[in-house]
Amino acid sequence: MSFREHIETVCNNLEGAVACSVMGVDGIEIDTFITSAPDNEMDLKSLLIEYSTLLKSVRDAAEVHKAGGVTEFSVNTEKLLTVARLISPEYFMVVAMKPEANYGKARYLLRVTAPKVQAEF
Amino acid sequence: MSFREHIETVCNNLEGAVACSVMGVDGIEIDTFITSAPDNEMDLKSLLIEYSTLLKSVRDAAEVHKAGGVTEFSVNTEKLLTVARLISPEYFMVVAMKPEANYGKARYLLRVTAPKVQAEF
Repeated sequence: MSFREHIETVCNNLEGAVACSVMGVDGIEIDTFITSAPDNEMDLKSLLIEYSTLLKSVRDAAEVHKAGGVTEFSVNTEKLLTVARLISPEYFMVVAMKPEANYGKARYLLRVTAPKVQAEF
Repeated sequence: MSFREHIETVCNNLEGAVACSVMGVDGIEIDTFITSAPDNEMDLKSLLIEYSTLLKSVRDAAEVHKAGGVTEFSVNTEKLLTVARLISPEYFMVVAMKPEANYGKARYLLRVTAPKVQAEF
């Protein structure tokens, strides 16, 4: 399976999913599958790029303070829930969903899918 | 009830809780209840201060990209899970716990406790 199939599978198994993406912590997108626009005004791709920059800062902060490697990073807003899971220190998978989506299931889907994506690297 | 009682209640109801804190997004702590040192090497208070700075960046990014107000922010590492919930645009509650703790319960406890803390402001 390619990246695309894995990220598509995550979206297809999560009601309320908006997008799933494989990205670098430098903000460069490897592949993104978008199911629906979350909101006409929201700039989803730019938001994910901003989050990836923050994920890099989170990773560095955790390292400096001896908290170990970052496994998961999540930001929930009034309009969008996002959960990111590190695939490697440089790459992560992220799923964005509507606020009414099943957050616990999104975490589960990332946990089981991330190793499969990692295997493709 | 004071802040202290609320944050103590969160820790007492969450097995594996390490600390619960009410902080400003400027990194200034209002009150913190620490149940146990998570790791001899980890500098928990400094880590929470770093996370609070990142939370401020997350809030600003979400605002710029029209994603609405941030409700929750979470960073999980190999040694420590942390969930933060905004009380107001300037203040948040955060709970830090061991990796084996019940993350879902921590989110629930913050969701029900944050409005009580907010009422004390």
